[in-house]
Amino acid sequence: MSAEARIGAGGLAALFAIGAIGGLVGDMCHVQSGTTVYLEDPLPYVWDSQLWFPIMVGGGTAALGWIGGLLGARASAAEREEPLRAAATMIASVLALYALTAIVRGEPGSVGIVLCWAVAALICARFARDRADWICAALAMLFGVGTEIVLSAAGVFEYADDIEQILGVAAWLPALYLAYGVVASRLGALLTTR
Amino acid sequence: MSAEARIGAGGLAALFAIGAIGGLVGDMCHVQSGTTVYLEDPLPYVWDSQLWFPIMVGGGTAALGWIGGLLGARASAAEREEPLRAAATMIASVLALYALTAIVRGEPGSVGIVLCWAVAALICARFARDRADWICAALAMLFGVGTEIVLSAAGVFEYADDIEQILGVAAWLPALYLAYGVVASRLGALLTTR
Amino acid sequence: MSAEARIGAGGLAALFAIGAIGGLVGDMCHVQSGTTVYLEDPLPYVWDSQLWFPIMVGGGTAALGWIGGLLGARASAAEREEPLRAAATMIASVLALYALTAIVRGEPGSVGIVLCWAVAALICARFARDRADWICAALAMLFGVGTEIVLSAAGVFEYADDIEQILGVAAWLPALYLAYGVVASRLGALLTTR
Repeated sequence: MSAEARIGAGGLAALFAIGAIGGLVGDMCHVQSGTTVYLEDPLPYVWDSQLWFPIMVGGGTAALGWIGGLLGARASAAEREEPLRAAATMIASVLALYALTAIVRGEPGSVGIVLCWAVAALICARFARDRADWICAALAMLFGVGTEIVLSAAGVFEYADDIEQILGVAAWLPALYLAYGVVASRLGALLTTR
Repeated sequence: MSAEARIGAGGLAALFAIGAIGGLVGDMCHVQSGTTVYLEDPLPYVWDSQLWFPIMVGGGTAALGWIGGLLGARASAAEREEPLRAAATMIASVLALYALTAIVRGEPGSVGIVLCWAVAALICARFARDRADWICAALAMLFGVGTEIVLSAAGVFEYADDIEQILGVAAWLPALYLAYGVVASRLGALLTTR
Repeated sequence: MSAEARIGAGGLAALFAIGAIGGLVGDMCHVQSGTTVYLEDPLPYVWDSQLWFPIMVGGGTAALGWIGGLLGARASAAEREEPLRAAATMIASVLALYALTAIVRGEPGSVGIVLCWAVAALICARFARDRADWICAALAMLFGVGTEIVLSAAGVFEYADDIEQILGVAAWLPALYLAYGVVASRLGALLTTR
């Protein structure tokens, strides 16, 4: 009988921290480029973000990593051998895509959409290994984009007028969440002990 | 005696479709960024492109894939094991480069040229495996750039004035065709049955 | 007793040439985008650079490659099998990052910093193999950034006012030198004969 596979409390805390800090760095890019604007600020700002944002991304990262491990995402031999290199590569890839979504503001909408979706496809094709990774990508996209649609409709924040939008959020947003979901699942796999 | 290596009609149709759709997506980036303008429109537009453009790119992709297979391009073990992942990675790479050539409009010419040629070199170095891939890259560059030089000289379309040009086409254009040729050959190798 | 590991005069000359030419290409991007301006030109210009710049980068590349080999950087089996592919990939990566640092001028400082540091992390995580590579990255950063801080303070050249700066140099500069240092060490490993 195999030992139970699980992520410990330390692993979940690490996932929360990675997501929260990564979210703050990426959101700073969006706010400073004018891609997004907070319209209501009931909570204190952390860096350029309302406090709920890093908590949401951190919590989402921990949840996705936990779900990925639960659904069978397991670190490959190469990932187990050099976990820090694997984690750094995946985190840097998503942060680069995050910054790219801010850079394409001011470009024609279609160009930004093609570039961001193509880079997201490269990230997914590079890192996704298990069926669980794709499920986490779909979950991240559904809940992430869904939450932003609701918050945008509620007037909590908005995307700039000059950005190509679908239901109030940027047309490249699903691509960013897909890549993020795959990486959260893989980070969960890296932290799952057996 | 080994069985004959060939791409079937279905494979050629797939290559045509990939090239035609990819060409439409990339050309949309060029047209909407003002990188290129159609000066004559004798044929109907498909999306933002004159009908001849997707037919040319689709036909070129099928031809290059067929030539690559004929000249001995064969899928590696890794490519045969996960053909969809390999194909998605290669197609997304070329589309990302295509979008990049549109993004660099407005930047100083030299910067766009260095970035696009460097990314094209990364794509070629990553995916080219057989001598046939390099032959296809050279063919794609010669015929692709040559055709665009003729059509530009004939006043069918033109590159924007503010783009660094060689004989009427953008200085980064050969790099885009080189990367495209390598990928067309590799896609042909993936679809070649033995 | 193992044979002595060393880079021959030809290898050092190759490293110098790669560094000098790469430095000229990258500096052209910085000068033409207005990222940097030479304020004093006691020496003749080569392309867009004062003569001391390519000599400094070429000499630095040879020195770092020599130090990397001395400290034990050795080509992996894959690198030895296809040294040209490995070298082209690494050189193109650093040139792409160099061009990217010029492209991000005009973007909000934070966005450019996140994108350049993320891409530099990807380059380091992809290519660094031996402890010597990380030592060379640190040396390149210390001496490269240090030299630029001194020359900027001395009024020899300057970064544009609209670029986020630390001690007179761009905030993304350490990232560029880190990636450069890793690649110089790996190129040294490729050229070290045993």
